Amino acid sequence: MARTVKVVVTGATGQVSYALLPRIAAGEMFGPGTDVDLRLADIPQMIDKAKGVVMELEDGAYPLLSQVTASSDRAVTHKDADWVLLVGSVPRGPGMERGDLIRRNGPIFVDEGKAVAQYGSPSVRIAVVGNPCNTNCLIARANAKGIPDDRWTAMTRLDQNRARSLLAGEAGARVRDVTQLVIWGNHSATLFPDFTNAKVKGKAASDVVDKAWLETEFIPAVQQRGAAVIAARGASSAFSAAQALIDHVKSLITPTPAGDWFSAAVASDGSYGVAKGIVSSFPLRSKGDGGYEIVKNVPLNEFAKGKLAATIAELEKERDLVRDLLA
Amino acid sequence: MARTVKVVVTGATGQVSYALLPRIAAGEMFGPGTDVDLRLADIPQMIDKAKGVVMELEDGAYPLLSQVTASSDRAVTHKDADWVLLVGSVPRGPGMERGDLIRRNGPIFVDEGKAVAQYGSPSVRIAVVGNPCNTNCLIARANAKGIPDDRWTAMTRLDQNRARSLLAGEAGARVRDVTQLVIWGNHSATLFPDFTNAKVKGKAASDVVDKAWLETEFIPAVQQRGAAVIAARGASSAFSAAQALIDHVKSLITPTPAGDWFSAAVASDGSYGVAKGIVSSFPLRSKGDGGYEIVKNVPLNEFAKGKLAATIAELEKERDLVRDLLA
Repeated sequence: MARTVKVVVTGATGQVSYALLPRIAAGEMFGPGTDVDLRLADIPQMIDKAKGVVMELEDGAYPLLSQVTASSDRAVTHKDADWVLLVGSVPRGPGMERGDLIRRNGPIFVDEGKAVAQYGSPSVRIAVVGNPCNTNCLIARANAKGIPDDRWTAMTRLDQNRARSLLAGEAGARVRDVTQLVIWGNHSATLFPDFTNAKVKGKAASDVVDKAWLETEFIPAVQQRGAAVIAARGASSAFSAAQALIDHVKSLITPTPAGDWFSAAVASDGSYGVAKGIVSSFPLRSKGDGGYEIVKNVPLNEFAKGKLAATIAELEKERDLVRDLLA
Repeated sequence: MARTVKVVVTGATGQVSYALLPRIAAGEMFGPGTDVDLRLADIPQMIDKAKGVVMELEDGAYPLLSQVTASSDRAVTHKDADWVLLVGSVPRGPGMERGDLIRRNGPIFVDEGKAVAQYGSPSVRIAVVGNPCNTNCLIARANAKGIPDDRWTAMTRLDQNRARSLLAGEAGARVRDVTQLVIWGNHSATLFPDFTNAKVKGKAASDVVDKAWLETEFIPAVQQRGAAVIAARGASSAFSAAQALIDHVKSLITPTPAGDWFSAAVASDGSYGVAKGIVSSFPLRSKGDGGYEIVKNVPLNEFAKGKLAATIAELEKERDLVRDLLA
């Protein structure tokens, strides 16, 4: 009998989830040997619509989909959950500052953390996508009593994917030729796509493309890619975010290939001087068991150290802004 | 070096394509050993938006995606194309009858057919999704001089998937337990989901579930499923249609498992009394070479014959309505 993974997706009626759910059902996240029990979570007023999404999932005739349900009751959706994918969050409205967004989402992620601890399986793992994802993850984790820190991740994979694609384009190479290009810090405009340790076909990126381009064009291009997509498409990134979450989870449940790293935001263990507990993106490797280890001794030059310091300073400020929610 | 498949998707900025494109890029249609050169086709006023979709495809960092471009010029998009997926069509507006829809789409598919013949690779294959897909396929095929009839298919797979899922639900079985349940005829309200030959875990469907349910509830449930999804979700089926197209193409390029059939609409060879040339859904099998054979000698009882006659009569009327476009 096939193994079954119980997966919760919050914000199930949103555009990212709409791009994500059929791919989880098709086995793209957990592989062709794993049945999926898929639980669509959303706020009460969205459940009728979520049931329409359930109908489409039924209509996919997915061989691996053992069950699919929708509910606004976390006692139902989160029961014995193996993976909780926190995709939903309050989006930034007109005139809202990042600080407003953080305070607005904070209480939601207090509840998300409590629900994970109360209802999740003993081996539950959580990936936070809803923005501001690092600090949302920090809040949820702090409110999930008894769930080890290393079960929690927040997604910087879309930034990593964008960075690898942009570097490959500049180098005239394929994306698969780019390795060890990871994101450090916050999933925000301060994120640092670390080209200083990246390789293209095994060579240092800075030996393959112009160093000035890397410092002055590449970094802002990655940081502002989301806005560029909105400008072109007239809507924010959805399927590329869903793709990044598939890649994020697969990287955690698949042994990392030799000679490569991936990035996700995780609780700092103090590595690289990042304050302990802060949820920061780091270079990671995984044994494929759902967990990760932070790659040690990655050399950071003065330029990289400066970029890391800036994004960590922002994360510390965000932490201070929600200190009352971390008790 | 990996094989590369050149794939055109028309209506590239629509919702079905938005659900489809990342999955083609991820290798879900043509498999993990095939690179993809993906061409997004749409009308001129949608190309800016299509370029936003191209950005998201770049941001997916797909190892198999060798190239991705967008254009409204079929000489560019269709050049040497191996697969042309005709997803785009004019949707039915308020107060439009099916006849109006057919006449409105007809000239577009005249052009689609000509472009396939003019620019496609010598081994080009075409799948029509844009509705009314059977008759759109008939028109395009008639205008594609030199392209053999057996390269053309239109999609009834969403109906088949819905039928298998609904029958599995009623039988308390998994979708993968349902075999030989195929669609006959038109992709419209007259389609016939043939439960009389279907099996659940190898047993006749009518021995597993109530026969009255099959005749009076199952058939209309399949026929009206699209409207039910719209009512629940507030938007028409998108990702389930994309899933069906993935399944459709995979069924043509993968040997059909023993003891099963799949369905797609193809040019009739006169089998089962269906007028030669009409594009009707039939039970098919494939050797996995992209082609198909119509399964012969499927027993049809009086009930099934009546349902088949009704849907074929509709297809003949549709053909007569567009006779001027078939020259």
